[in-house]
Amino acid sequence: MRAAVVRNGHIEVEAMPMPEPGPGEVLVRTLACGICGSDLHLFKHGAAMMQLAQRLGAVPDNLTDGLVMGHEFVAQIVRFGPNTPHRLNVGDRVCAVPFLAIDGQPVSIGASSRTVGAYAEYFLLNESGLIRIPDSVTTEAAALTEPLAIGVHAVAKSNVQPDDTAVVIGCGPIGLACIAVLKLRGVKRIVAADLSAKRRALARLFGAGEVVDARKHSAFDLVGATEATVVFECVGAPGMIDQIVKRAPVGARVVVAGICSGEDTFIPMLAVAKELSFQFVSFYRTEEFEAALTILANNDVEWQAWVTGTVPLEGVADAFEALQGSDEHAKILITPSADAVPGGLPQRPIPAG
Amino acid sequence: MRAAVVRNGHIEVEAMPMPEPGPGEVLVRTLACGICGSDLHLFKHGAAMMQLAQRLGAVPDNLTDGLVMGHEFVAQIVRFGPNTPHRLNVGDRVCAVPFLAIDGQPVSIGASSRTVGAYAEYFLLNESGLIRIPDSVTTEAAALTEPLAIGVHAVAKSNVQPDDTAVVIGCGPIGLACIAVLKLRGVKRIVAADLSAKRRALARLFGAGEVVDARKHSAFDLVGATEATVVFECVGAPGMIDQIVKRAPVGARVVVAGICSGEDTFIPMLAVAKELSFQFVSFYRTEEFEAALTILANNDVEWQAWVTGTVPLEGVADAFEALQGSDEHAKILITPSADAVPGGLPQRPIPAG
Repeated sequence: MRAAVVRNGHIEVEAMPMPEPGPGEVLVRTLACGICGSDLHLFKHGAAMMQLAQRLGAVPDNLTDGLVMGHEFVAQIVRFGPNTPHRLNVGDRVCAVPFLAIDGQPVSIGASSRTVGAYAEYFLLNESGLIRIPDSVTTEAAALTEPLAIGVHAVAKSNVQPDDTAVVIGCGPIGLACIAVLKLRGVKRIVAADLSAKRRALARLFGAGEVVDARKHSAFDLVGATEATVVFECVGAPGMIDQIVKRAPVGARVVVAGICSGEDTFIPMLAVAKELSFQFVSFYRTEEFEAALTILANNDVEWQAWVTGTVPLEGVADAFEALQGSDEHAKILITPSADAVPGGLPQRPIPAG
Repeated sequence: MRAAVVRNGHIEVEAMPMPEPGPGEVLVRTLACGICGSDLHLFKHGAAMMQLAQRLGAVPDNLTDGLVMGHEFVAQIVRFGPNTPHRLNVGDRVCAVPFLAIDGQPVSIGASSRTVGAYAEYFLLNESGLIRIPDSVTTEAAALTEPLAIGVHAVAKSNVQPDDTAVVIGCGPIGLACIAVLKLRGVKRIVAADLSAKRRALARLFGAGEVVDARKHSAFDLVGATEATVVFECVGAPGMIDQIVKRAPVGARVVVAGICSGEDTFIPMLAVAKELSFQFVSFYRTEEFEAALTILANNDVEWQAWVTGTVPLEGVADAFEALQGSDEHAKILITPSADAVPGGLPQRPIPAG
């Protein structure tokens, strides 16, 4: 089979052996897999992350040579391993929380060299974790389940109330997911900020009533000094925490979903003086993942606008460049087997950056 | 009257005019006032804090020349201003949340040049905020109300449950207050860490079942990787947040009561991966302040051991040095009017550093 493999700073499409499902496992064919901001991050900072793991006393995974990423997948059941219950059928479309049990321990799919991720034609899942995608839900929509689940989880962790002001900083896929879920949860005032005009337009479409150009303004320019405020940090670049600590109103609750893997600096005294709180979030519970699929199935989120490009495996390297260099994208989907299976997606070219 | 005044890096006892109570205000005589870690901080970093305020667009208060600190006070009513209800009587011993209403806005007592703090023989309070100290409570015990209230508030904000493991980092007055309140709230496992043998002994006395020497061990050495843990950061030095992010177990809730006024650095990705939360705290609600006084009135905390020295105004400069240089102290009280009033405290010499 073919897969897009990380090779020392490049992504190359290579032939690799078809994975063999063991007991409880199924072989699945990838129908679509979103490119996540954390994939870009892993690609760019994999070496630094390995060094950090080593410094912290962990055995570092090889993130720079041989890694097959991809954890936002829709797949189709191809074959069951031995001693697997066959709860579902060959041909069923499924998604799943992206972990594979290895020696009884959950190992990340798409962020570990111990698994093969969905930037490949085929990969392995545990049957017990499979969630069947209803026929009414398109593959494209279902591929957004994972990033939307991050939003479901982040909003749940924030304990936001309808009368709170929500400030969403960064309107990439995670920021958009947060905005969509905040809207669904009845939050009346949603203020969003992003550098990109395209993403600001998406933020409005998803439910932000006020949107600022982060090059010119801070979202906090629009928020009163004593307004009950919940902040969603969805950028993950150094300096974001510091900005929030300096500008957020007294008592603000901050949910940090952005992943900044380098060191970041802030002034604790200012956070103390304002009694700010920070809830760092990653992943979601299985129920939250299922809730995200339900939101998509109900067409409660503008998923068509969310997907801004679709590429085959050969297009992954260009898509990574497009996502890092341009302001025009939200989510790009990879379709490794698009021409081979029913439910495959038409290729949608990446707009020029 | 006399006061201990900050003068460009020194503390000097000076004569200054007796404050004149306005409507709703009372003139009080200081019976005792604790030296707070934040006073040491303000004394050392006042200039930097003024620069920071200026950078943030605030009009900086003059913290380096003319400031009279002191916010952990027990005082005695001397005289009522005009149009003041006289709810209490001249001679009553009182404490209060340390703010004075100026033009309808609360201004900090002891951390602003717009008020006179309790490092003085006399200062002003609003009658409406006065809390009468029961006759059964000594002045020494009542002087601990304010720092204990910080512990009451920090523990309330942590939402700690009896079966959670509490880790208290730093066993100065705020760490001790947290330990005492955690114990009162029924928390069964309290692990504390400090550099000083004296403070570690106090931590045990206050209720920590396990205490580590922070020079040799981390408190987290004793805590399992998946143990439900609430951490109290009561040091306020750069690097503490980073250590906690690296060592705290998955899902730990961190309450930051330590005041680090300089920049601090940590790796957000590690906090994201563990889904840590940080609640920064300062001050307390009035009910929490009253709850602290009740704890002291009930002798539910070892207040005698908490006070490690008592000095007159002339001893403030030496006490500051002792608190910064030695490991032997928890709380030092100032008694500006010790020999003049009933309820005054005997001088208790500061042990050599």
